[in-house]
Amino acid sequence: MRRGRVVLFEAAGKDFRQETFEVRSLQRGELLVKNRYTTICGSDLHTFCGVRKELSPTVLGHEIVGEILELGPEHPGVDMRGNPLAVGDLITWTIFSSEPDSWYAHNGMPQKADKLFKYGHALAAGAEIFHGGMGQYCMLREHTTVLKIPAGMPLAVAATLNCSTATVAGALRVAGDIRGKNILITGMGHLGITCAAMCKSAGAALVIGADITPGRLATALQFGADKVINLKEDAAVIAALLQDFPRKGIDVVFDMSGSPDAMELGLSYLATGGIAVWIGAVFSTRPLQINPESVIRRLITIKGLHNYNFEDFNSAMTFLENNWQQYPFEQAIEKEFELHEAQQAFEYAVQEKPLRVGLRIGHE
Amino acid sequence: MRRGRVVLFEAAGKDFRQETFEVRSLQRGELLVKNRYTTICGSDLHTFCGVRKELSPTVLGHEIVGEILELGPEHPGVDMRGNPLAVGDLITWTIFSSEPDSWYAHNGMPQKADKLFKYGHALAAGAEIFHGGMGQYCMLREHTTVLKIPAGMPLAVAATLNCSTATVAGALRVAGDIRGKNILITGMGHLGITCAAMCKSAGAALVIGADITPGRLATALQFGADKVINLKEDAAVIAALLQDFPRKGIDVVFDMSGSPDAMELGLSYLATGGIAVWIGAVFSTRPLQINPESVIRRLITIKGLHNYNFEDFNSAMTFLENNWQQYPFEQAIEKEFELHEAQQAFEYAVQEKPLRVGLRIGHE
Repeated sequence: MRRGRVVLFEAAGKDFRQETFEVRSLQRGELLVKNRYTTICGSDLHTFCGVRKELSPTVLGHEIVGEILELGPEHPGVDMRGNPLAVGDLITWTIFSSEPDSWYAHNGMPQKADKLFKYGHALAAGAEIFHGGMGQYCMLREHTTVLKIPAGMPLAVAATLNCSTATVAGALRVAGDIRGKNILITGMGHLGITCAAMCKSAGAALVIGADITPGRLATALQFGADKVINLKEDAAVIAALLQDFPRKGIDVVFDMSGSPDAMELGLSYLATGGIAVWIGAVFSTRPLQINPESVIRRLITIKGLHNYNFEDFNSAMTFLENNWQQYPFEQAIEKEFELHEAQQAFEYAVQEKPLRVGLRIGHE
Repeated sequence: MRRGRVVLFEAAGKDFRQETFEVRSLQRGELLVKNRYTTICGSDLHTFCGVRKELSPTVLGHEIVGEILELGPEHPGVDMRGNPLAVGDLITWTIFSSEPDSWYAHNGMPQKADKLFKYGHALAAGAEIFHGGMGQYCMLREHTTVLKIPAGMPLAVAATLNCSTATVAGALRVAGDIRGKNILITGMGHLGITCAAMCKSAGAALVIGADITPGRLATALQFGADKVINLKEDAAVIAALLQDFPRKGIDVVFDMSGSPDAMELGLSYLATGGIAVWIGAVFSTRPLQINPESVIRRLITIKGLHNYNFEDFNSAMTFLENNWQQYPFEQAIEKEFELHEAQQAFEYAVQEKPLRVGLRIGHE
């Protein structure tokens, strides 16, 4: 019987605990993966800091790349593009698995479908331990959608695909056609810079990156932002800028920050007919104050998106395949740690607020 | 030179003033119409009561049916369906005219396009007097989209088409496919009952009409609502009802009331993936309190719509053609007055809150 180590999260403020467990045998449709690289997502940090509640103990980490160790009975043996899967292949997979034959799955929202299971978010108990990125192995449930990592793509780049990149791909899908549009992105974390690069590559007329941290604004310029705005200082600058736009406002605003101030500002900057896509606020915030008359008279659309669907997962891969070298995505993983240094990695991430911290797994 | 009478609105709290003016000669692309019937819309009442500000003096009334008196030079001579237009034809027309060769017109929002002009909303001054429904004539500007009234459709029914019916048609367009969906409509005024009938005829699984006035709820049942809810009393009833729905919530909520309480409740009742369409709040209200995390995690879409586009105008006509006898649309015009009784008509409407009051024109 194979045994493996995981890093257990028990409660905010308590150190991680490393422990070794037996890896159970595979069931119908499952895959066993040897984790190779996990990036720490903002949501992992929210749990670590007690801002988000999860069942515990749990194995955090859902932005994972791994290597196939074993295909379970009746596994279809192909990824979502039809590429054959074999032991040794490097893969990434959707953050969730769910029942394909259910209403939400049939209606483009598999991330909310029946029998939902989310990697890096589940209770670690009994034989069900290996379902997060902060362990040596991950067991992929039946109906988990998989993509092979293209040759040459660094593990650190590929790791962010199944959360940050795919969610941003979803944001662009719900925003509709980006070509020729003026875009504002609030929050220049990993989601924000990815969104800037994706909008630029989708043919946006102008991409404005906004944040309250000068360092993040400088980074945004490397990821396709044509212009950057410090929301703490430049409210008047953006208001003036809008007067030169043909529609006197922003066509699409993406909020990646989760800041109520940023979401309210974003709505106020929209042109008539504009769209606001909210992604960032996956934690509790103060309520937004929204003027319904203004939403109505300006024909505003507001869309919330959480996670992503299979189309988004696939288009995220296409985007990264074509663009990971056009923009410094590799440098966005600003510091790397080994799995056994998980505690330091999280403390570093909380303190220094890098775009991403990476955990290398299986080198030890 | 032809002369005609109009009812001038000067200021809230001041009686209407009736006056006679010269009707100027037609310019390129214009049409001269002899008004036959005008229904008083909620927006007219808002202006009358001082809740909405318009330039004044003005000729209120935009839900109008009239008879063609004269076609101006170079008028295309056909309605939007290609039917030839001749003197004597009964027609209705879009509440606005705008420049067809401009961005918003090209992007499905002609109601926000360049050179926007709105009937029943403009300053009455100089030679530009006849542009509202509360007068004997209306002069239709170039690029005003016209539809002939089908034989047999009562004037009172046809009059509401170019505002209430068309706006509701727009609401259904932006809501997407209605078939098989569970619908909640808050506000059972003329917009709300029209929405109930339109959703029912579009194949909704269940239409719930909500209001705070028992009389309006009774009417809703005649207009296709399967169920009615008194929002003042039955918050628990609707919460319990939702538990039996397959998605534990409403798929589409239409707010026709403009009430912040109703809009907030509507959002709270939405199922994951649900859509809220706001139409009612075309006046100043308290700001809504919205929880962005809930909008995001539930993949909620919020859409504001003001007025409508040509597709909506046309589908409103198709709907009324097929359904004006299926539902008691004629009785929704609860009381009629003659044009010279405009003052009494408005006072009655404010006091008694009927679905609609009608003004007969040209019988005197």
